[in-house]
Amino acid sequence: MNVQQLIVNAKVYNSYYKRFDAANVAVQDGKFLYIGSRGIETFEAEEVIDAKGRWMIPGLVDIHLHIESSMVTPASFSYGLIKNGVTTIVPEPHEMANVFGLEGVKQMMAASKDCTADMFYAIPSSVPATPMETTGGSIEIEDMDELLRTETIACLGEIMNYVDVIRDPECKTNQILRHVRSHYPDLIIEGHTPKLLDLDLHQLIAAGVDSDHTHQSIEGMEARIAAGMFIEIQEKSMTPEVMDYLLQHDVAEHFCFVTDDVMTDAFIEDGHLNHIVRKAVALGMKPEDAIYAATYTPTRRMKMHDRGSIAPNKVADFLLVSDLEHLVIDEVYKNGAKVFDYQNDYGQTARSGQFPPHFYTSVRLSPLSEADFQVKLDMADGTRTARMMVVKDGSTFTEERHVPVTVTEGLLDWQNSGHGLIATFERYGKNGNRAYGLIDGDTIQRGAIATTYSHDNHNLLVVGRNPYDMMVAANAVIQSQGGFCAVENGQILAMMELPVGGILTEEPLEAAGRKVQKLRAAMKSLGYKHYNPIMSISTHSLAVSPALKITDWGLIDVNKGQVVSLLVD
Amino acid sequence: MNVQQLIVNAKVYNSYYKRFDAANVAVQDGKFLYIGSRGIETFEAEEVIDAKGRWMIPGLVDIHLHIESSMVTPASFSYGLIKNGVTTIVPEPHEMANVFGLEGVKQMMAASKDCTADMFYAIPSSVPATPMETTGGSIEIEDMDELLRTETIACLGEIMNYVDVIRDPECKTNQILRHVRSHYPDLIIEGHTPKLLDLDLHQLIAAGVDSDHTHQSIEGMEARIAAGMFIEIQEKSMTPEVMDYLLQHDVAEHFCFVTDDVMTDAFIEDGHLNHIVRKAVALGMKPEDAIYAATYTPTRRMKMHDRGSIAPNKVADFLLVSDLEHLVIDEVYKNGAKVFDYQNDYGQTARSGQFPPHFYTSVRLSPLSEADFQVKLDMADGTRTARMMVVKDGSTFTEERHVPVTVTEGLLDWQNSGHGLIATFERYGKNGNRAYGLIDGDTIQRGAIATTYSHDNHNLLVVGRNPYDMMVAANAVIQSQGGFCAVENGQILAMMELPVGGILTEEPLEAAGRKVQKLRAAMKSLGYKHYNPIMSISTHSLAVSPALKITDWGLIDVNKGQVVSLLVD
Repeated sequence: MNVQQLIVNAKVYNSYYKRFDAANVAVQDGKFLYIGSRGIETFEAEEVIDAKGRWMIPGLVDIHLHIESSMVTPASFSYGLIKNGVTTIVPEPHEMANVFGLEGVKQMMAASKDCTADMFYAIPSSVPATPMETTGGSIEIEDMDELLRTETIACLGEIMNYVDVIRDPECKTNQILRHVRSHYPDLIIEGHTPKLLDLDLHQLIAAGVDSDHTHQSIEGMEARIAAGMFIEIQEKSMTPEVMDYLLQHDVAEHFCFVTDDVMTDAFIEDGHLNHIVRKAVALGMKPEDAIYAATYTPTRRMKMHDRGSIAPNKVADFLLVSDLEHLVIDEVYKNGAKVFDYQNDYGQTARSGQFPPHFYTSVRLSPLSEADFQVKLDMADGTRTARMMVVKDGSTFTEERHVPVTVTEGLLDWQNSGHGLIATFERYGKNGNRAYGLIDGDTIQRGAIATTYSHDNHNLLVVGRNPYDMMVAANAVIQSQGGFCAVENGQILAMMELPVGGILTEEPLEAAGRKVQKLRAAMKSLGYKHYNPIMSISTHSLAVSPALKITDWGLIDVNKGQVVSLLVD
Repeated sequence: MNVQQLIVNAKVYNSYYKRFDAANVAVQDGKFLYIGSRGIETFEAEEVIDAKGRWMIPGLVDIHLHIESSMVTPASFSYGLIKNGVTTIVPEPHEMANVFGLEGVKQMMAASKDCTADMFYAIPSSVPATPMETTGGSIEIEDMDELLRTETIACLGEIMNYVDVIRDPECKTNQILRHVRSHYPDLIIEGHTPKLLDLDLHQLIAAGVDSDHTHQSIEGMEARIAAGMFIEIQEKSMTPEVMDYLLQHDVAEHFCFVTDDVMTDAFIEDGHLNHIVRKAVALGMKPEDAIYAATYTPTRRMKMHDRGSIAPNKVADFLLVSDLEHLVIDEVYKNGAKVFDYQNDYGQTARSGQFPPHFYTSVRLSPLSEADFQVKLDMADGTRTARMMVVKDGSTFTEERHVPVTVTEGLLDWQNSGHGLIATFERYGKNGNRAYGLIDGDTIQRGAIATTYSHDNHNLLVVGRNPYDMMVAANAVIQSQGGFCAVENGQILAMMELPVGGILTEEPLEAAGRKVQKLRAAMKSLGYKHYNPIMSISTHSLAVSPALKITDWGLIDVNKGQVVSLLVD
């Protein structure tokens, strides 16, 4: 029998028995045809691959992630995925959707088409995240209908707004849920349900949301699984207690591993979903079980019945692994063809112009001056009480604190308050909104940081300790049509240009990763104490994450869901 | 909170942990909303159901069966299902499709619409079964397209013709497979793969067929599961060895229980899928695991994500069980409403005219005479050698044996041969074909049996020991527009009318069951030695089941796949 590839002498992962079998594997038309003892005496192969006794496992599958978290294009992302053995992903282009709406989603999908890794998209379900911010675009029900007519949609992405879903039958998210459930009854609906329990949790599931990828507690995870939810374990959920629970209970069918957000530098240093698998094994999980949760259960969750195991009729995406315990990936095959070999050069060709021209001119702001970092107040001089955002290491949550400030000649004298200033500027040319607040805690103690990579609205966000550095940082970002800039004493310490929609670079992954490393170091040198300063600052504008945040509409009391004034009195 | 039903004080089956939890359950809009400790203090229920500590399990789900095997209409079948706790089925109307083609399938679906049990249909994929028989209809690719535009199609039914699929790329079945896989890539394709192993098995899976419900051996089952097949265990596969394998291996995800064919009398005596669950428990399976295989895995196989467990957002089909070990079903609920209670009357209202008028006039044959059971041979008198079908107890397979016969005055002197005659008459008014053969073995030794319930073509089939009894039996069946009749000495011993398409009765299930009991007894009184004489005789015309069978085209050598002559020489 003629076949395209014949892999001989492999220890082949069997997903159905979670074991390795010594076998040969025949591939035809990019799919597995046969796994068993037959070899060259049966098959006339165009290519015979000697696995030399190595482990052969399915390509890894990551069903919950945001490409934009790595600040690179799908092409660069795919490059990184492949060398880490990840052959299929389900990205949710939430950030690009906030910048360009439906077009942002479609262009991310278009930019993924030629990638080596397969990308099936999740439709962003919560754009904008709140009605209290200006974004470049939104995703409406008719946009979802249009996206669902394409073939590369895997699911409706995480329903962020679970509180409204439970409390307000008429909220936009419930309208979306009713629409998709009546028109697309088989559509998978992904969830985001931190801390929800008991009746609240069951009501959300009854609304059609049946997965969760947020940080898991034992109690919460057991309640979710028992209620029929599928759990997507990301790194922050991999506590010893959670891993121990997964090892001790017969719940292998009900969870998978995902990455959610991978910073560019972590991507090049640690890898991707392979890093999670390795970590699971290091924490005591059998490799056979960890592989299951990175291949079989994620594809089943996403109804990708054509892949996820090494079995007849499945897409021939596979890895040859020389050290199972540490998941050392020697070679990666996609549709039966080799796409990575550790022995060969594996470079990335830089590409530009992957998006339409207007994707490179999305930061519609004129250069700012020092005066733009003065806060004008229409009131008599005197001492007042102001709201201050307090940054806390280890969390994207902030605290609201009330501190005394002085108003002098109609200006807030923030520079003598002992605290920093946070400012945001609407950057889509829609209304020229701007907002200010005080900031302190584990943030920078000198200089300034500016970025358009600010969840979810991606307006220009600037944090600083003096107007001049803030101006320099802001103008560098405006000049580059988006980016991340750290400044001290008027000098740029680190600059990462993000010209695609103000949130992505087209640079190769490794170059981008090195810039992020430098940026992180610069932010720390300015006194930022957070373990992940990039994530920390870019969520200061995330008005669904407690407690005090800022958008172009003003300071947001997230728990109350409303805009609050800078001065308390 | 207002809800429709609140079930309190139940031991609720949790499919995800395969355990029972003491809990209350709230139902809203026919779906489960909540399972937990909250009760009347939280929920204002229209109806409070006190489970009194009984077990609450999901309605049973049978994903592979043929309603026509029970010779009753969907309405009667549903009646029987409900009292046995089966709330959802996937029937394949293979027989009605052979009689009426596409219209047969559509009318079975239409007749299922108002039934209490939910019926999602499998499209018959192999109609007619062979090109060597005349049937009333066929199912072509365009018929499948039409059926797939309706919402109640679950899958493509069992691919019978696995030999051609593997050997002949251009056979009709491969054309069907290519068509459905390219146009409906997510369509489930059900298999029928007796004894297939190794490369043959993998080739069939590679063609898209990935389940099997035929008789399982340990070796075959392990090979199937390892290759990604889903196993549907029917009663004949429930050998101690197979059950032991299922108990000892971690394969709960990869099999379910099905009934396939349930004779009418067994239906009223033993029950339905509940009988299989009971039997599994009797053979050592934990009730929690047996229930899993009759609820959770079958719905997942069929992608019926809206049901199969007691969890939020699932259809509220459930049973209250007072004896878990013996699965004593006290009450049955469908969409939250009670549809069976062992304490109340549960009768079936007789219904007629459920099908279009021409469904009752499908046996287009004039009354036969004794001469129709004489076999004319255009040859000189003398002794010849004839092919004889030898019936064997325990099997639907027959043997071919060669026996001496005498030709006298242009007629086969079969009556003095010591053997019986089998005759079949095309009954669709298409060509008037008829065919004859000799028969012996474990079949009747006196009298005659006639039936239009003869797989898969359902032409009139008559087996007898003398022409007069054969004529009487045949004419009784013709007169009734279909049926099953046993005759001795010119007297009808048992008669079951099957006026709908010649294969179904509209009588209530219990009445039909009693007639089948009587028919079975009559057939045995005529000397039939087979454990299931009804199945035995009705498969004499099944030209895909070895070895010597008969259709209106003539005697069929099944292994050679060709028509053979009555006389060997």
